[in-house]
Amino acid sequence: MVISMINRLVEKIRQTKAPIVVGLDPMMNYIPGHIKTKAFAEYGETLAGAGEAIWQYNKAIVDHISDLIPAVKPQIAMYEQFGIEGLRAFQRTIDYCRDKGLVIIGDIKRGDIGSTSEAYAIGHMGQAQVGSQSFYGFNEDFVTVNPYMGSDGVKPFIEVGKKEGKGIFVLVKTSNPSSEEFQDRLVDGKPLYEIVAEKVAEWGADHMGDEYSYVGAVVGATYPEQGKILRKVMPKSLILVPGYGAQGGRGADLAHFFNQDGSGAIINSSRGIIAAFREASYSAYGEANFAEASRAAVEDMIADITQAIV
Amino acid sequence: MVISMINRLVEKIRQTKAPIVVGLDPMMNYIPGHIKTKAFAEYGETLAGAGEAIWQYNKAIVDHISDLIPAVKPQIAMYEQFGIEGLRAFQRTIDYCRDKGLVIIGDIKRGDIGSTSEAYAIGHMGQAQVGSQSFYGFNEDFVTVNPYMGSDGVKPFIEVGKKEGKGIFVLVKTSNPSSEEFQDRLVDGKPLYEIVAEKVAEWGADHMGDEYSYVGAVVGATYPEQGKILRKVMPKSLILVPGYGAQGGRGADLAHFFNQDGSGAIINSSRGIIAAFREASYSAYGEANFAEASRAAVEDMIADITQAIV
Repeated sequence: MVISMINRLVEKIRQTKAPIVVGLDPMMNYIPGHIKTKAFAEYGETLAGAGEAIWQYNKAIVDHISDLIPAVKPQIAMYEQFGIEGLRAFQRTIDYCRDKGLVIIGDIKRGDIGSTSEAYAIGHMGQAQVGSQSFYGFNEDFVTVNPYMGSDGVKPFIEVGKKEGKGIFVLVKTSNPSSEEFQDRLVDGKPLYEIVAEKVAEWGADHMGDEYSYVGAVVGATYPEQGKILRKVMPKSLILVPGYGAQGGRGADLAHFFNQDGSGAIINSSRGIIAAFREASYSAYGEANFAEASRAAVEDMIADITQAIV
Repeated sequence: MVISMINRLVEKIRQTKAPIVVGLDPMMNYIPGHIKTKAFAEYGETLAGAGEAIWQYNKAIVDHISDLIPAVKPQIAMYEQFGIEGLRAFQRTIDYCRDKGLVIIGDIKRGDIGSTSEAYAIGHMGQAQVGSQSFYGFNEDFVTVNPYMGSDGVKPFIEVGKKEGKGIFVLVKTSNPSSEEFQDRLVDGKPLYEIVAEKVAEWGADHMGDEYSYVGAVVGATYPEQGKILRKVMPKSLILVPGYGAQGGRGADLAHFFNQDGSGAIINSSRGIIAAFREASYSAYGEANFAEASRAAVEDMIADITQAIV
């Protein structure tokens, strides 16, 4: 039986009382020296060594936080930069997080047209046919999708996801300063991101889970006023909110991304969690206890967001 | 010394008298039975077997056409659908094409923000630092980039490219029917794709090769009228034109994508070349001679385009 991942994600957010997702976006300079030393001793200063260091770093963090959170969001670019060996660490991280019961949102921001979008969807959510056999590729539960090419580009992701009970988050209003260059341009008096949001609501209407649709949206924490409007344009879409913490968003800014009942959004933090030990507030843990620092940062983030949405 | 890839591409187009690029976008159902049988006999009906079949198929085609063309454009989605093993075939294809002297345009349509875009750019064009060493990842010469996130998303690709003498093609107006949904929306009386094109010209102005800039654009062959306007908006950008053949564009539609001197555009064909043996006009070659059929299709495409731009 196919498990509905949108229902599972909504349920896990309720169970954990944590509408948050941790971005597993490792950078080499975040990784504690002892992990790198060990990985390089085994594999050398090579791409394989980098992959091993990333994997050991992720594993330790996941081991320390998996009981507190519903989901993780690995950013594939941080792995892809090390080529095949980096992507192997991405794969190991996904497989491990699944074993730990976490929902996996692949932050891949793919988008193409027709059979090409379908191929991306198969590689990340579905099963590839090889002769008489079929195999999962990276096997995430959700992926992020770029809408620039319109319905032709997005629908193949929805269709492949449907077979597997999986869903997508479409980029609507991204958290970066220059998102205004194209996304905020006025079309018939409305910013483009709102036109995209209307499409997200339309695509999602035909693909509903119990409470929320399989078609979610990405809206940056750095734009709370826009979040307020977009929440209403897409009442049935789960909103994935990047930009908390390191990029400037704080709990109080986030209330509007949620529906009245306190559901409907999931806030991402990456660096603020995985590299917490490098910040002044958690520096007492020291590099050796980096994963404990990550756990403390998760607990603080949950408290910050919970008080904002009560 | 760093080789300027934009100068090299422009020069190779002149040398070969072929303003075309062949899209290496393998689908399992294109691959002749004898290649699949051999690959599956060796690796089983597995992801590794699929990767081997793709690689052998690509290799045979490249061996038969590499002297006629300046460049290839592997579509990474077609490899990524088979996970790590598929990406290994992508890597082998790139390495082989480089040895054959071809310019490699990685059709990856990536796009993110800041350090994340930088990570993609490093993985595909640049070198990743691991301890005291640095390594190329996939090592393409150009990549395609999605502009939805604005300058923050695009500039890291330009910067990484600059170090390596490499460049990008930014999606401006894609070839698919629903590209109109967002790209054609009017902003201050101008379609969004034109606003994006103005940015491409601006980004490129600071990053010039001898004749063309390191910042090219993607404009679909299926939109010749738009091509005419966009050619003028971005006079110094090489235009990469998908949608020839299978998607409906023909030589006569393409004249406007070129500048007066017959330079400035490079037309892509994928299925029409790599799966030529499946089309009525080349069926006489038979499945066994699929690569010879591809060569004949390249020759016909060059003739079709050359007569249109004279």
